[in-house]
Amino acid sequence: MLKIALDAMGGDNGPAPIIEGLTLALKRNNNFSVIAVGDQAQLLPLIPQKYKDRIEIQHCTDVISMHDSATDALKRKDSSAYIAIELVKDGKADAFVSAGHSGASMSLATLRIGRIKGVSRPAIATLMPTVDKNTLVLDVGANVDCDAKNLQEFAIMGKVYAQDVLGIEKPLVGLLSNGEEETKGNEVTKEAFKMLEKLPGFMGNVEGNDIFNGSVDVVVCDGFIGNIMLKTAEGVADTIGKIIKQNLRRSLVSILGAVLMRKVFKGLKLKVDYAEYGGAPLLGVKAPVIIAHGKSNGKAMSNAIFQAIAAAQSDLNINIENNINKFKD
Amino acid sequence: MLKIALDAMGGDNGPAPIIEGLTLALKRNNNFSVIAVGDQAQLLPLIPQKYKDRIEIQHCTDVISMHDSATDALKRKDSSAYIAIELVKDGKADAFVSAGHSGASMSLATLRIGRIKGVSRPAIATLMPTVDKNTLVLDVGANVDCDAKNLQEFAIMGKVYAQDVLGIEKPLVGLLSNGEEETKGNEVTKEAFKMLEKLPGFMGNVEGNDIFNGSVDVVVCDGFIGNIMLKTAEGVADTIGKIIKQNLRRSLVSILGAVLMRKVFKGLKLKVDYAEYGGAPLLGVKAPVIIAHGKSNGKAMSNAIFQAIAAAQSDLNINIENNINKFKD
Repeated sequence: MLKIALDAMGGDNGPAPIIEGLTLALKRNNNFSVIAVGDQAQLLPLIPQKYKDRIEIQHCTDVISMHDSATDALKRKDSSAYIAIELVKDGKADAFVSAGHSGASMSLATLRIGRIKGVSRPAIATLMPTVDKNTLVLDVGANVDCDAKNLQEFAIMGKVYAQDVLGIEKPLVGLLSNGEEETKGNEVTKEAFKMLEKLPGFMGNVEGNDIFNGSVDVVVCDGFIGNIMLKTAEGVADTIGKIIKQNLRRSLVSILGAVLMRKVFKGLKLKVDYAEYGGAPLLGVKAPVIIAHGKSNGKAMSNAIFQAIAAAQSDLNINIENNINKFKD
Repeated sequence: MLKIALDAMGGDNGPAPIIEGLTLALKRNNNFSVIAVGDQAQLLPLIPQKYKDRIEIQHCTDVISMHDSATDALKRKDSSAYIAIELVKDGKADAFVSAGHSGASMSLATLRIGRIKGVSRPAIATLMPTVDKNTLVLDVGANVDCDAKNLQEFAIMGKVYAQDVLGIEKPLVGLLSNGEEETKGNEVTKEAFKMLEKLPGFMGNVEGNDIFNGSVDVVVCDGFIGNIMLKTAEGVADTIGKIIKQNLRRSLVSILGAVLMRKVFKGLKLKVDYAEYGGAPLLGVKAPVIIAHGKSNGKAMSNAIFQAIAAAQSDLNINIENNINKFKD
């Protein structure tokens, strides 16, 4: 049976939403068990009696907090993240899930579990909503300065993830640039364009708005730009919401309108709610690693666990290795 | 009297919206005149009799179209853009406005009018909406690969524009990065951070969402990232609109709600409508140059002309030169 190593202490709101998500996941899927790493005294009362046989608690007292430096993670050997990563490294668990310090999870996964052969740098991938499907974007924060080879690997890893985990048969891949023409781009993306031309499904350059119109399935960029893109998208959505609210207050008629449109706004919220997507996979390490949002609620945590299960049950990492090494030859 | 050199032929929809915008501007402001460069036969019938004494037509037949290469612009000496730029270069006009090929306008302005002393590269600045004010972002497309010195100059030029043209007494300036901490950034932005530390009003790193929350007045980035940010913002706004519309169709109650909220949506559209802002100034050349959107309607064109007038009446370029050279010492 598949076993998930769960960092039960990481996250902005302590273990309660994490165990809530775990319980939801156990209820909906009978085919996995969990090693929950954390403070036994805090965890035990949160676990419902009926799931106790599927949850093994690995006691520890240290937690890497959001204020700690990621570079210290390797020294914090008694922390919940470190111990959960070691369980995967030692083959005692199949995948790692954490809502804790994302930099620490990345460092630990990369350095302790290790990179897939042929991968220079792991990348964080995330799903962005479009009207009728989602777009996978990577890297969204693991790597700030990237060369063309890194971007090439991100493209291959993203494509394999879209195929093996998202179930898209022939994913279309785009390179994020400042124009669609081949001549557009900065020095790094122009070089990456040439390296990717022979990748089946590579559609060339795409622009920022293409992330949201569904023209491709996978969008590749460096982690600096990926972070700015993500925060820009959040900022715009947030501002539109605020402008609507501000203008609403000006008239009773508008308020009535908003009440009648409640379902529409709810549908919109569902579309842009990260909890629907769960966490972000760190692609390129030897075992599935899912990095959940620090503010994850129960639903987000359960979805992050399902993502880890889906990745662990697929041939994701074998296919990443094969595709990267085949394409580089 | 202030004289504007207007490329009357550039733009996706020919001279009609350009002359419509010009007429609007002439009506609202008595203190300027125009040299409209373009095909006399097309322009003359568009110009109302009462404004004929304030509009001088400089006849030409060539237009640089959106499909032409920017690098050819210098050879197209009979084009409306080239001739209008020469009028500014030769001191026969005070500022240049065009809705034509933006790359061509940039090249012509930079190479024919010339850069301000101390400016390595001119930058395009644009206003992004927040709930209660606007944020000036630069560069949004003129320069794809930038070094730290370029970003430093953009910061100074943006700050001076915010002071002298937007009327913000003490503008706050942020450097676009992947986190607020000083340690965040790529190699270029980290170096730029150090070079900007002593600039009064420099607030350090800002993130993508800060563009839309009004925490600073000026945001600095390279043109590659600026373009991706701009297109991302457009893509998100567009997608939210589409999701709302799609969900609306599902129920009569929601449609009624939307009708009642009409004013709110109209207010939102006003906020994110580029026509409200006019064009984008190219900062760093020796005369005011305003690059309007190719799809500009009359309102957008009139606002672009007002921007050119405001810049020409200010001490913008003297202050850019003084500030850049003072800060570099």
